[in-house]
Amino acid sequence: MRIAVDVMGGDHGSKVVVDGARLALKAFPSITALYLVGNQAEINSAIAATRFNDPRIEVVHASEVLSMNDRPLVGLRRKKDCSVLRAIDLLKDGKADALISPGNTGGVVAAATIKLRPLEGVDRPAIVAVIPAPENDFVLVDAGANVECRPLHLLQFAIMGSVYAREILRCHRPRVGLLSVGTEEIKGNDLTQEAFKLCKQVDLNFIGNIEGHDLFANRVDVVVCDGFVGNIVLKTCESLATNIFRWLRRELKKNPKRQLGALLAKGAFRTIRQRTDPESHGGAPLLGLNGNVVIAHGSSRERAIMNAIGQAVKALQNKINLVITREIAAASVRLCKSIPQAAPATA
Amino acid sequence: MRIAVDVMGGDHGSKVVVDGARLALKAFPSITALYLVGNQAEINSAIAATRFNDPRIEVVHASEVLSMNDRPLVGLRRKKDCSVLRAIDLLKDGKADALISPGNTGGVVAAATIKLRPLEGVDRPAIVAVIPAPENDFVLVDAGANVECRPLHLLQFAIMGSVYAREILRCHRPRVGLLSVGTEEIKGNDLTQEAFKLCKQVDLNFIGNIEGHDLFANRVDVVVCDGFVGNIVLKTCESLATNIFRWLRRELKKNPKRQLGALLAKGAFRTIRQRTDPESHGGAPLLGLNGNVVIAHGSSRERAIMNAIGQAVKALQNKINLVITREIAAASVRLCKSIPQAAPATA
Repeated sequence: MRIAVDVMGGDHGSKVVVDGARLALKAFPSITALYLVGNQAEINSAIAATRFNDPRIEVVHASEVLSMNDRPLVGLRRKKDCSVLRAIDLLKDGKADALISPGNTGGVVAAATIKLRPLEGVDRPAIVAVIPAPENDFVLVDAGANVECRPLHLLQFAIMGSVYAREILRCHRPRVGLLSVGTEEIKGNDLTQEAFKLCKQVDLNFIGNIEGHDLFANRVDVVVCDGFVGNIVLKTCESLATNIFRWLRRELKKNPKRQLGALLAKGAFRTIRQRTDPESHGGAPLLGLNGNVVIAHGSSRERAIMNAIGQAVKALQNKINLVITREIAAASVRLCKSIPQAAPATA
Repeated sequence: MRIAVDVMGGDHGSKVVVDGARLALKAFPSITALYLVGNQAEINSAIAATRFNDPRIEVVHASEVLSMNDRPLVGLRRKKDCSVLRAIDLLKDGKADALISPGNTGGVVAAATIKLRPLEGVDRPAIVAVIPAPENDFVLVDAGANVECRPLHLLQFAIMGSVYAREILRCHRPRVGLLSVGTEEIKGNDLTQEAFKLCKQVDLNFIGNIEGHDLFANRVDVVVCDGFVGNIVLKTCESLATNIFRWLRRELKKNPKRQLGALLAKGAFRTIRQRTDPESHGGAPLLGLNGNVVIAHGSSRERAIMNAIGQAVKALQNKINLVITREIAAASVRLCKSIPQAAPATA
């Protein structure tokens, strides 16, 4: 498999991304070609610094960078030779099978949607975030690609999230829940009420509406919502977890007795830290496009980049796009009356 | 001040609520009358069991209960003599100044909105939840009263939340943020983009859009969102925090070394537990109505009920409805062109 890596646009500069790609080449022998896309001089000096040479590496020059501050559509229009567009071109031209980018999320979503187009039967690609919980990791979809959604989009997110949980996380018959404000079918807003009716008609292990209370209590494997709610939930959870542990650390340092206690109990903290390590996933796939795209966190370090590439490798090995297309088609047959009435795909 | 307590409908039965009311009578001497509304026989036996007699107590009989499983509007139509309606009648008839109910939230919101009507200039009442964070407690509004909102509603929530943070939480010039998916004005959905334009025109310490990342990092005092997002955020945070500490407790029990460590460090856990104790607030005010309403958690125990009553006492002492009316009117003047175009209040 052939992977394109957008080397520019991460918070820690291109060297970290190049180093992450190098780790991935060691870890995943199934990679046959790895394109490092970005400023050629910068990439070559990063490669030279590591003294790592691998015939699978090819540097593809791009003279511009879509920065975190660029407004996605404006930036993409102005910076025609930016690394993310050049990297996506490799997928579009059939030279690469997957893209990893730690850059501007909105920019990656917009560029990939416009250039690669959604899969047959999919209206909008969605970001799939894996969230660690004490007893099960669950999937949140859409974690931020689509701020405004229609009910059919949520159904498609439910199917894509379910395929991901089953094929990649190896979750048997994933429980799919619609994030709402009450468990009864009539609870929620217009969007979720309509999406509920669609979800219960197709072949999903649909458990109905779920509430915020259910998320970390091993009651659901796939949490479905629009990208506005999903992005807020994802970032709120990251913030709350980080700040709880920061607060605890501060309290544990307050006197020698507590410090000794913390030292004796450090194994407990380590176990939780390891299970919730954001670098272990490294990135969130953008599912539903003709091509595999993984969006890495802007703050990704080497190991996160390696694992984001690993996500793409797994998606390719499991032919996830083929499975999604098949299951979306099967759902369309079940909803034979609803689907044709839907508006055409808009990016 | 005269307080009506809906004694029925909580998860732990009427005795717990009666006991909570008894604690409140001791704690808040400014209470001149306390109406216990519900099944008279049950209430009288609860009072007899505590051997507590206070001339300020008056029992008001209601033959029915709106249960947690009742659909709010259907239930209120069918159960005309339910305790929450009887209690609200006391406010409507000028016999009580505030209501506390641990019952069906949707039922309390619907009944109070229909019977008491919104304050002058307010379209919809909103639930104000106080959320503890390591360095500041912040206010989330609306935490679940309004699933579908218009931009003007969010502006009113912002004003009510700001008044609450200033007058009740004693937060000087509260920072008001609009919960969205990016900090720039153009980020967010149609609702938040329009609400942004309104919020920046009025006299608020409006800091613009905030993201999930900002919530627990002492960057905002009033978080404004519609009730769908707010309810999901509130319940997700409760679930995540509960499950993190449950997980930690499980890990800390795994071997004797960790157990000893936990024992030595227990002061750190206790500090956090005390600061985040949900019973310390006891309830969330439903602001924006002609009358003071506090919605207590269904699972409230005695101390939570007492503190919920304390919330109502503080709201009355600080004449919060007067301040809200004044500030909403001032905002209307500033928005003199926008406000008259708004649709009339709908409950």
